[in-house]
Amino acid sequence: MTGEIISVGTELLLGHTINSDAAHIARMLAEMGIDVLHMQVVGDNRVRLLSALAEATGRSDLVFTTGGLGPTGDDLTKETVAEFTNLPLVEDAESTRHLQEYFGQRPMSSNQAKQALVPAGSKVFANSAGTAPGCAVPYGDKFIILLPGPPSELIPMLETGVRPFLASFSKSYISSTIVRTFGIGEGYAAEMLGSLLEGTNPTAATYAANGEMFVKVTAKAGDAESARALAMPLVQKIREKLGDVVYGLDVPSIEYQVVHTLINTGQTVATAESCTGGLLAKRITDQAGSSAVFGLGLVTYSNIAKETMLGVPPDMLRQWGAVSEQVAKTMARNIRNIARSDFGLGITGIAGPDGGSPEKPLGLVYIALAFSDGCWLRVMQPQGRYAGRERVRHMAASHALDLLRRYLQKLAPVI
Amino acid sequence: MTGEIISVGTELLLGHTINSDAAHIARMLAEMGIDVLHMQVVGDNRVRLLSALAEATGRSDLVFTTGGLGPTGDDLTKETVAEFTNLPLVEDAESTRHLQEYFGQRPMSSNQAKQALVPAGSKVFANSAGTAPGCAVPYGDKFIILLPGPPSELIPMLETGVRPFLASFSKSYISSTIVRTFGIGEGYAAEMLGSLLEGTNPTAATYAANGEMFVKVTAKAGDAESARALAMPLVQKIREKLGDVVYGLDVPSIEYQVVHTLINTGQTVATAESCTGGLLAKRITDQAGSSAVFGLGLVTYSNIAKETMLGVPPDMLRQWGAVSEQVAKTMARNIRNIARSDFGLGITGIAGPDGGSPEKPLGLVYIALAFSDGCWLRVMQPQGRYAGRERVRHMAASHALDLLRRYLQKLAPVI
Repeated sequence: MTGEIISVGTELLLGHTINSDAAHIARMLAEMGIDVLHMQVVGDNRVRLLSALAEATGRSDLVFTTGGLGPTGDDLTKETVAEFTNLPLVEDAESTRHLQEYFGQRPMSSNQAKQALVPAGSKVFANSAGTAPGCAVPYGDKFIILLPGPPSELIPMLETGVRPFLASFSKSYISSTIVRTFGIGEGYAAEMLGSLLEGTNPTAATYAANGEMFVKVTAKAGDAESARALAMPLVQKIREKLGDVVYGLDVPSIEYQVVHTLINTGQTVATAESCTGGLLAKRITDQAGSSAVFGLGLVTYSNIAKETMLGVPPDMLRQWGAVSEQVAKTMARNIRNIARSDFGLGITGIAGPDGGSPEKPLGLVYIALAFSDGCWLRVMQPQGRYAGRERVRHMAASHALDLLRRYLQKLAPVI
Repeated sequence: MTGEIISVGTELLLGHTINSDAAHIARMLAEMGIDVLHMQVVGDNRVRLLSALAEATGRSDLVFTTGGLGPTGDDLTKETVAEFTNLPLVEDAESTRHLQEYFGQRPMSSNQAKQALVPAGSKVFANSAGTAPGCAVPYGDKFIILLPGPPSELIPMLETGVRPFLASFSKSYISSTIVRTFGIGEGYAAEMLGSLLEGTNPTAATYAANGEMFVKVTAKAGDAESARALAMPLVQKIREKLGDVVYGLDVPSIEYQVVHTLINTGQTVATAESCTGGLLAKRITDQAGSSAVFGLGLVTYSNIAKETMLGVPPDMLRQWGAVSEQVAKTMARNIRNIARSDFGLGITGIAGPDGGSPEKPLGLVYIALAFSDGCWLRVMQPQGRYAGRERVRHMAASHALDLLRRYLQKLAPVI
């Protein structure tokens, strides 16, 4: 079975939007054993979309479109697919109900209401994060599957609607396990894993995202349990090979891992941030349930805030500077005392783009973890070219989380 | 003149890589007034690439390929384009010299050396960040332009090689202006703007992202100044029609707008966050230069932290609850006093997914802005269905920024 993706949107052709939707769909299809041989992008243009549909349905079994389902005048994917398949648009009662619920007391325009129309005979996918439903439109023995453009709406719809729909056509079951790591590059990991990446069932592939590397292990079998049993020995081998840079299996992020370990062990953490400016607290509190483990975070961006709120001695700031091992450790220790928490995390560094010097270059960050009888320090030394403010801040917060993760997993502080 | 992009790479079809290259090329072409009507993605496969080339050269004047120029066995773009154009591959002496320089003392394999071959008669683009050069291959009165896949190699090559090469063909210039708003939905805005969205030059289109709506106005003319002059009257009309929900023109975000207004007026802000857990401070400090206007943020996630760090009276917490107008205002006023800043922002609410009640439902957030002689309050009332933790937190921080934005722009507090 083959799939093809048509991304609809003038904003894609203008380069305003990067086409992440196509990658999300493609990844799901790859996991389900459906081959994608072509992708296309066209603008919000009826004629060119008709020709793209003709081409795609001529060579692929499942054609996915993204975008053009919304309420505005240039959203014309649904109307064009109805024209192409020669199916009338009919109201889907469940979608109308969903729209009414979504709008609540607010008035709903006729353009908004039109979102509940779908080509007759379609299988409808509810939109849990927005207004326009998706749908699978029958076309001979093929399907044209219409999906919303915003990733926040597309991604849940893929998981809760499209995947189960497609699974009903497939006789095999896919098991996927993700081995997450922090502190190892993708190229180096791939070399370490060598032939473990060369199998066909199960398969293992490395990915890099957000400064982390992960390995996805996928096995295909007749039922869920057999697929999982097929995958597990390879997962174990990969885990052993990579060692303690592995922070978890099938967890979404290092902050998830840390917060849930703290919840499970009944421990608490407090944060004192300078260059990350609240990002570490934000990532901890991204986790539902984090209030059980996190009560206080300070963003002491200025020196005066470090002195008055955290009790960092002015002498220390003068002698070593705000970006120093001494200040990072004091921040971690003092926030732990102030919050009466089990752990304190302190971060101070130079996120840039200004403020670097030969002694303290852009990207230098000191990260400290204070606990009952000691303090760990990690230094993020800039390597190669300055990676930019956003990247430095993200990596600094990740290092802080990883430092605590290693303590909680009873490992040595340094990678 | 029309351009089309063919992205070559099996990793794109598997969803391992998000296709940012196509967006980079498209943005450059849009700026140069070259229309992109189609994009395609094919795998590292000779037959399908040949057919994509035939289709693209049949309908577009400039065909760009990315990927498949490297030294490995599945890199076959150059060979396939040579076959398609019926041009022999010849050595480019300058590229060979560049390769020798790149490898220095290290041995160079014959596969590596082959990267210096290009279809005869091509214009060669040097690769300042890698080994494989790009090139523009003549094909009748058209060009097939071969570019490397890694963004780190592609982006500099676009600027230093491709853009000057294309500039010699293009006669028109594009001007784009973005009108950013907060507090109005895309559907409603589109209805308000009506026929203003229907022009052809300049064009105006609405977009929605991250809980905000923006309008992009684009005009095409013979030079930059004329294009801008053509766009500006429409920009002004749109601005007037939308009114004071417009927070800025051609600014990247509301936090950018707020931080830069504070920088320009020499004023400062401090934050006290509960449910947003540091997100507001993070968004403020995302901005380079924010240290001039932001010194301190508190994340008082627990009640005890609200009492001890912010001086919220325990009686007030008991009587009204942590999620209340009273507590939000006290947080804003007290952080302003503690930080000795011009403004204080306080946020308290129920981000969910747990903790809601009939009186205080999921998504209810109180946002307060304290200034020298008063305090503004905004209540984020959940409308329709609960939008999820991430969305509630993001919108709450946006509302706080918008409240301050409106004060700085001397507007009334409520939208």
